[in-house]
Amino acid sequence: MTAPDNILENGQENGSGTGTVAALETVATATCFGGTQGTYAHHSVVTGTAMRFAVFTPPGDGPFPVLFWLSGLTCTEDNFTQKAGAQRVAAELGLILVMPDTSPRGDDVPDDPDGAYDFGLGAGFYVDATVAPWARHYRMYSYIRDELPPLVAAHFPADMDRRAISGHSMGGHGAITIALKNPHMFRSVSAFAPIASPSRCPWGQKALSGYLGPDRAAWRGHDACALIGDGARLPDLLVDQGAADPFLDEQLQPHLLREACADAGQPLTLNLRPGYDHSYFFVASFIEDHLRWHAAHL
Amino acid sequence: MTAPDNILENGQENGSGTGTVAALETVATATCFGGTQGTYAHHSVVTGTAMRFAVFTPPGDGPFPVLFWLSGLTCTEDNFTQKAGAQRVAAELGLILVMPDTSPRGDDVPDDPDGAYDFGLGAGFYVDATVAPWARHYRMYSYIRDELPPLVAAHFPADMDRRAISGHSMGGHGAITIALKNPHMFRSVSAFAPIASPSRCPWGQKALSGYLGPDRAAWRGHDACALIGDGARLPDLLVDQGAADPFLDEQLQPHLLREACADAGQPLTLNLRPGYDHSYFFVASFIEDHLRWHAAHL
Repeated sequence: MTAPDNILENGQENGSGTGTVAALETVATATCFGGTQGTYAHHSVVTGTAMRFAVFTPPGDGPFPVLFWLSGLTCTEDNFTQKAGAQRVAAELGLILVMPDTSPRGDDVPDDPDGAYDFGLGAGFYVDATVAPWARHYRMYSYIRDELPPLVAAHFPADMDRRAISGHSMGGHGAITIALKNPHMFRSVSAFAPIASPSRCPWGQKALSGYLGPDRAAWRGHDACALIGDGARLPDLLVDQGAADPFLDEQLQPHLLREACADAGQPLTLNLRPGYDHSYFFVASFIEDHLRWHAAHL
Repeated sequence: MTAPDNILENGQENGSGTGTVAALETVATATCFGGTQGTYAHHSVVTGTAMRFAVFTPPGDGPFPVLFWLSGLTCTEDNFTQKAGAQRVAAELGLILVMPDTSPRGDDVPDDPDGAYDFGLGAGFYVDATVAPWARHYRMYSYIRDELPPLVAAHFPADMDRRAISGHSMGGHGAITIALKNPHMFRSVSAFAPIASPSRCPWGQKALSGYLGPDRAAWRGHDACALIGDGARLPDLLVDQGAADPFLDEQLQPHLLREACADAGQPLTLNLRPGYDHSYFFVASFIEDHLRWHAAHL
């Protein structure tokens, strides 16, 4: 069988990770804080495209617990990897970091017709689209939940029984919702400046209507507040939010998450950080707190 | 007087910082580790262009000592700012970080005729060019030495009697040479993967011949090893170098710096770091060591 895009050697018919180990191409690696920071590529059966993700493997033999980091709008696997400064603490704690891309990409992957940053490429929203033309490739929920973990398990010294998930903005919401929908998958969940309720903000309404169609009933399964309202629970939840975030009131609306958690008895630690905005300077400032919090739960 | 490029309000006739305070435009700021990470723009009298630089100001009132960071080929003021993770330690130590761009930029600034990364834009080499067409704008030595410090002194809570300088690659060499040529300006000097002797490597030979002309006598004033050989001294010098750096043998040649320092009795701590390459993952891994070393000298 010939590799469709020259990044495969074998095993692509088992991309979900069962059976033959799916092939992984090492795009680049660098030593970082005594560990290895790498970028890897593979053919995704779920998205039907080449996909990239970044992994930090700490020094030592492992097996190590694994934190999945989901990035926000416009990001790739590089943003958190290069800007958050997380490797220092992950090396100390013995924690693998996995940073996937935020959407499928490639010549045959459709993008927002206006080229907007908040839909299409770089904006997969961690859902499985059901509406054409998005449904064919935009399946980031299944990619993160089903395809990426066995690939990490097969190629890195990971203890997959000790998994954490976190993310930023769209990715913070993705982390919370994936954990809510899969209650035994992650031992700890946190988020930076997450969208609280996409059903009630412009970014989310555009994404959910575009990927899932106009029926709001279908949106409930990808809205953190609705999921909590419908009974889903997390073991605990740590959220940091910049008080000077320009997206705070219109898009992120952390009060909706606070209210949903309070109404449901869902534990939540929500730190509002005066002066901080939405950037990776904010994430970098508090990532150590989050990694230590995750490590204590793993 | 009308601002030529809309970034000035006043004072541009005194851009070197004497007399009227030169105007500074705040392009963007973000809170970071309790301090402020900003990008600033001004009209440079020295380069005859708009110039940008980044500054991290730690929390508190100051005055704070100042570390100037000179970046390498292809970089802008953003690379170290976003990728080195230096703000965490600078906030703790109470250290201002100043990150200038690596060349003049603008529509009338000439670039390498082949668009190569190692000459022209992003590759000013911290020299004052004497050869047309470079001599008009490519004056990064005077920009860093004469124009930037008074601008920092005027607009930030800086104690300019306590100055340090460091940099990476081309910028590591720039830091060493500017300090060698101005022995009372900096209390401490360090570098990551510096070019040791541009007169003897392809990057340096291209830059020095292009900016200064073919007469190698003119190059000696911008070659760290030649300057040391000619009697210039630093109070001390800390260098970190990745042993897996792909530019080690052909371009950087740290053994030349070691030999020049040994021959001259110049103190040098040269740490060769197994496994590390030339990237900011290397810089990030050891920047804390350097900042603490500088703080101890300041």
